[in-house]
Amino acid sequence: MNNERLVLAERPEGIPQPQHFQRDDQPVPDLRDGEFLMRNRYLSIDPAQRGWVNAAANYSNPVGIGEVMRSLAVGEVVKSKHTSYSPGDHLYGWFGWQRYCVATPSAVLRRVDPGQASLTAALGVLGINGLTAYLALTTIGEPERGDVVVVSTAAGAVGSVVGQVASALGCDSVGITGSAEKVSRCTRRFGYRAAIDYKNSANLRDDVAAICPNGVDVFFDNTAGDIADAVVDNMNKNGRIIQCGTASIANWDPPPAGPRRERQILVKCLRQQGFIIFDHIDAFDSVAETLATWIAEGKLSYDEDMEYGLDSAPAALAGLYAGANHGKKIIAVD
Amino acid sequence: MNNERLVLAERPEGIPQPQHFQRDDQPVPDLRDGEFLMRNRYLSIDPAQRGWVNAAANYSNPVGIGEVMRSLAVGEVVKSKHTSYSPGDHLYGWFGWQRYCVATPSAVLRRVDPGQASLTAALGVLGINGLTAYLALTTIGEPERGDVVVVSTAAGAVGSVVGQVASALGCDSVGITGSAEKVSRCTRRFGYRAAIDYKNSANLRDDVAAICPNGVDVFFDNTAGDIADAVVDNMNKNGRIIQCGTASIANWDPPPAGPRRERQILVKCLRQQGFIIFDHIDAFDSVAETLATWIAEGKLSYDEDMEYGLDSAPAALAGLYAGANHGKKIIAVD
Repeated sequence: MNNERLVLAERPEGIPQPQHFQRDDQPVPDLRDGEFLMRNRYLSIDPAQRGWVNAAANYSNPVGIGEVMRSLAVGEVVKSKHTSYSPGDHLYGWFGWQRYCVATPSAVLRRVDPGQASLTAALGVLGINGLTAYLALTTIGEPERGDVVVVSTAAGAVGSVVGQVASALGCDSVGITGSAEKVSRCTRRFGYRAAIDYKNSANLRDDVAAICPNGVDVFFDNTAGDIADAVVDNMNKNGRIIQCGTASIANWDPPPAGPRRERQILVKCLRQQGFIIFDHIDAFDSVAETLATWIAEGKLSYDEDMEYGLDSAPAALAGLYAGANHGKKIIAVD
Repeated sequence: MNNERLVLAERPEGIPQPQHFQRDDQPVPDLRDGEFLMRNRYLSIDPAQRGWVNAAANYSNPVGIGEVMRSLAVGEVVKSKHTSYSPGDHLYGWFGWQRYCVATPSAVLRRVDPGQASLTAALGVLGINGLTAYLALTTIGEPERGDVVVVSTAAGAVGSVVGQVASALGCDSVGITGSAEKVSRCTRRFGYRAAIDYKNSANLRDDVAAICPNGVDVFFDNTAGDIADAVVDNMNKNGRIIQCGTASIANWDPPPAGPRRERQILVKCLRQQGFIIFDHIDAFDSVAETLATWIAEGKLSYDEDMEYGLDSAPAALAGLYAGANHGKKIIAVD
């Protein structure tokens, strides 16, 4: 049985582009004891994938040249030599940019109940994006009723959930995003009281100040860089900065220069803290349950942006950093 | 009765210098009900005083032009129209650069027992310096036995206590300081396993890496700037950065540029948090009690650097930022 696979052909500096990947089909190997065979249905396209192929400091070992591109996916067990996994089980996990994956239990993040929500939801709003939104906001942000919560990449797969969770917790949420259309989705669909199109802002610092006259208590930062600086300058005493992404900076080797924050962090007693979702796997099932309930009750909206065919994955990933997607980017494998 | 006073004559940009202050003696006013008259014995010279006279963002309103310079001091009640304060009481509080101070209870930080330790100790090791060291390290740093704790301005009034508290808690403490003599005091007197003279380091990042081969878990940062960057690059996953001072940067208006930290904060899940001692006044008495016990048991060393006469205060303050002091800088008023 042939396995269509996309492997890393060349290590990118900065944003991965289609030429960094190539097809390298191979026969599906026979299963050994303890393994099971996944058939991928949908692949998850995530900003973090940039980090997984870069050699610079990161939280996981980089994907090797010639290895299948690391990716989260949702799929179905089609054959099994493991007692806990049976054909027909749906799983969310590390199954890669390929049609089939010989997996072991360590690759699984969560079992998916296809009756709970659509299979694609398992990748985004009930996957690392929604889980990140909920867990980073609550564990680092510690939002209290009435707090002003500002979110960068507010219309994205993570940001769109942050706005709705913050509003559900009684916070005043304000989004920063990159087009008038996204501003509109932020306020109409994603629970934001207001949103700013940073590409049309003459002075983002002043615009944040005008929209948040009482300052900012929690900043959910998915961009870093100039956008983040403009928000940090508006933060209140004891504010919390959740460092969840760095989407606005293409290359961190070496790190670009920016205004030093030490004085603001000191005099305002700010707390800036990094968040990596994979340190919180134990909480996935219970948070996904909460979010699935909200979806069923019509309280949680999400957008998905689907493309078709394994070969569309590399361009979809590159497009993510250009803000070309409208909602969670998903590749339907077939 | 004449009151010798030093007032702010001109607002400094950056480090306050002697020409920014002038003598402006005035008669001591009569006490009103609820007030008491302090006679200052010792003034505390503190790095934070720079912030109290600068117009830029800070945690307290700046001292006004023509107002007595804000300062902590220890003194004795000499007259009282308040039932809780009697002549002979020793107090630590906001009594300013002057011989006498008409005070109300809001100026008092702590009652001082002259039998517990020397009066001067109330300003430093049992005052905001020692209290900052203990409270910032324990509340933000959350040090665990075996953690590597790196401290900048390690031989200073705060840093010298941090090293000893960290060692008492079973941590491996490493100091960064600015002379061979201070390196020696760090290791001989202040509990540090090792110390680095940053002025004689060709590559501070590499020197920290060599002395901390297992990385850094807690960074108690009193300097900010390049020194801090060199330590942050060596931090371990889930490391804590205590932002307690910014001594290496003379002017924050506008903030100088430095390498952006967002990526490191994200991928290592670092937590960087500001600490202001005056948010922790409720804990002062119990922590001072702990530290005084350690002093009495010979477990806590401290150095004091005394100058004599109110008029020596401005030059002593300027000298602090040049690293000219050897231990807690104190002015004996008479």
